[in-house]
Amino acid sequence: MPSPDAPQILLALQLANGYGAQPGAWRMPGTDPSAYTDMDVLVRYAQTAERGKIQLIFLADTPVLDVDLEQQAPHHATDPIVVLTSMARSTERIGLVATSSTTLNEPFTIARQFKALDIASHGRAGWNAVPTSIPAAAANYGITLPSRQDKYERAHEVVQVVQALWGSWEADAWVRDVEGRRFADMSKIRPVNLRGRHVASAGPLAIPPSEQGQPVIFQAGGGDAGLEVAARYATGVYANPFTIDEGRAHRDALRAAAERVGRDPDEVKLFAGFMPTVAASRRAALDRRRILDESVDLDQRVRYLGSMIGLPLTPAQLDEPLSADQLAAARPSPGDPRAPHALDVAQEGWTLRDVLAHGVIDYHPVVPGTAADVADHMQEWFEAGACDGFSLAVDVYADGVDTFVDEVVPLLQQRGLFHTDYEGTTLRDHLGAPAQYGTDPRLS
Amino acid sequence: MPSPDAPQILLALQLANGYGAQPGAWRMPGTDPSAYTDMDVLVRYAQTAERGKIQLIFLADTPVLDVDLEQQAPHHATDPIVVLTSMARSTERIGLVATSSTTLNEPFTIARQFKALDIASHGRAGWNAVPTSIPAAAANYGITLPSRQDKYERAHEVVQVVQALWGSWEADAWVRDVEGRRFADMSKIRPVNLRGRHVASAGPLAIPPSEQGQPVIFQAGGGDAGLEVAARYATGVYANPFTIDEGRAHRDALRAAAERVGRDPDEVKLFAGFMPTVAASRRAALDRRRILDESVDLDQRVRYLGSMIGLPLTPAQLDEPLSADQLAAARPSPGDPRAPHALDVAQEGWTLRDVLAHGVIDYHPVVPGTAADVADHMQEWFEAGACDGFSLAVDVYADGVDTFVDEVVPLLQQRGLFHTDYEGTTLRDHLGAPAQYGTDPRLS
Repeated sequence: MPSPDAPQILLALQLANGYGAQPGAWRMPGTDPSAYTDMDVLVRYAQTAERGKIQLIFLADTPVLDVDLEQQAPHHATDPIVVLTSMARSTERIGLVATSSTTLNEPFTIARQFKALDIASHGRAGWNAVPTSIPAAAANYGITLPSRQDKYERAHEVVQVVQALWGSWEADAWVRDVEGRRFADMSKIRPVNLRGRHVASAGPLAIPPSEQGQPVIFQAGGGDAGLEVAARYATGVYANPFTIDEGRAHRDALRAAAERVGRDPDEVKLFAGFMPTVAASRRAALDRRRILDESVDLDQRVRYLGSMIGLPLTPAQLDEPLSADQLAAARPSPGDPRAPHALDVAQEGWTLRDVLAHGVIDYHPVVPGTAADVADHMQEWFEAGACDGFSLAVDVYADGVDTFVDEVVPLLQQRGLFHTDYEGTTLRDHLGAPAQYGTDPRLS
Repeated sequence: MPSPDAPQILLALQLANGYGAQPGAWRMPGTDPSAYTDMDVLVRYAQTAERGKIQLIFLADTPVLDVDLEQQAPHHATDPIVVLTSMARSTERIGLVATSSTTLNEPFTIARQFKALDIASHGRAGWNAVPTSIPAAAANYGITLPSRQDKYERAHEVVQVVQALWGSWEADAWVRDVEGRRFADMSKIRPVNLRGRHVASAGPLAIPPSEQGQPVIFQAGGGDAGLEVAARYATGVYANPFTIDEGRAHRDALRAAAERVGRDPDEVKLFAGFMPTVAASRRAALDRRRILDESVDLDQRVRYLGSMIGLPLTPAQLDEPLSADQLAAARPSPGDPRAPHALDVAQEGWTLRDVLAHGVIDYHPVVPGTAADVADHMQEWFEAGACDGFSLAVDVYADGVDTFVDEVVPLLQQRGLFHTDYEGTTLRDHLGAPAQYGTDPRLS
């Protein structure tokens, strides 16, 4: 068992539409098909996650309808601020984090809304600052996407203006001296008057510091340009490594980049996307995932699996395993980091339907199995330095969040890998992030 | 008593910062000086208003710090969407309305956030669509204010795009057919693809209709240009008449303008701003207001009062009434509609301090008095056709909202002037507004 002072796994629970990430989740047994518009459902997930001492809820977001609603639910929440505020009113500790686009929003709006959420939640808000890369989202705002360089230039400006607005009240500016008739010390509330090439704001924001000073910054995606944003401003980074090697490479690059700008690399935490399916056995977990797979195009997927492992597979073979000849001829595609794992699973003798049910072509690593299988995977990645924690895309249907909290969390705790209670009351406390007002002086 | 079918008064409770509208309200007895950041305080006011069957909460808003915080609290809520969502979670009937600037926000953001609030509140949201006229607010968004003509041209475009986005799902588009594996009918969910001179959006919005279809539109201010916005789109209009004549003129103009664009004038309701102070007697109400007045510059106000009634008044006379000579020489300024009322009050023999405590130079009509005095005023205005209801800037301190609900509301109900229960569950129900999806076909 690691020493009590050793780093521990951090957990984010990804929630969005009230059903979970899988396309057919909205019509699973035990699922309310109207969950998308029922704040109570989302609030209950947040409460369950809080019961499990999970550090934060994360709502990934792009302001666009990007799925075919004939069969699938929308990917994203009705609105992140509305959903997180609803959660804030019915929870006390768990962090509340959402994406808001640096490409499509003005910094004053972001600063005001996330700070108000930070106030309403008593210091539990975080902002995932990402440029938007989907042209249809830009079209919702009447624009075409800027160049990648312009988007990242703007992202830096937006984060800096937002942080400056957040810091426009000093920590002790809000006096509230009833006897002395002094509401605030205006010498400690200052405009920011920043103007960049893309955005500008005068300020100040009309909101005092929260219990954690100001919201926590997260970052996701973007290659080297994204790494630079993360290194300069972020406390948490959402990443999508398929393998331990990929995770370690990303985390090492992130830590090195943070060090280059003068930060302690331990201040930047990498959350690896992860889709666990917990059941009494691997077979039961696969059955659970097979139900979810009914909504996806398995014919297309089986062909894609073939291209991944170098075999011309057809849907006719869906309920058979690979033959000995096929196994001998198979070659993992060097262009897809998921390919070796896909072949490993196929070599275990599963039918192609079950190979796919293992999630070998999903967009995060999938572990279908017992709570111990899931905990083993997390432990292996964490101890290999592939991540500081996980961003969990749990299949939430039929008490999926409860199952994770009741079965996986205790195992991680027994192994000394996960805290047994929140370290404090704010998101900064949960992440070990230092207090902050305004832009970080170490970077100026 | 009017017949049961006669129109009744509509009531909006203006809330903003948790203290009430008066500058010194934050430090009054019984007031939490931290109420600005305490959602619980604001939620309790909403619950009290709901107990009184008040139709809606209204948060006026401008995204700017426009007061000197040394002595005063901010005028506006930390963020309207965060505050109204907090209220939505702890109330069941009352409408939830806030201003969002048509000058500074993109229509997709407004459409998404107010629709999400409408979903979270089960059909109780409303949007007060107003251009911004404060240069410092524009500077927070990095721009200088456009011309008045451009602002109103943009306002029309923004409202039309927002309503089109709200209507991008037909009423029965959200199928949720679990057996048939059909989440929605995509033939009934359509992009809007609107492009104006100022704003554009592709859509669709990823949010189904709420229980009231889509949020209700409100409007405020803007002279003839504002009247045109109100006539075309609004169900409720916030107005600031100082006299019955002013209210009637505004309401008549509004109804005529609505008729010109083909609407039933009864669909547009004028809410007159009103600041009641309820106490056991007028003397007690004046004392209550005098405490609040301690935070304002009475020296300046007494001089202003003088200019209103044509006398060179000085602070030296603050605790004396006007002399007989002064009363004989006084002439109400024709440029200030509040002047005749100010002189009427002075003629009753009050000291200048008490004349000012009557609110004669406040920005809404003030009635300091008993519940019956307040109800009499409301009845007189309403029956004279000066308004369809009132936007109440109650002095909330020390249970001011409870006092209004427990003392004034029953009187209005006894007189047949105010409903005794909500007519339905949605804001449209409360206002008698027809269901709406998208832009109104009668206007197209």
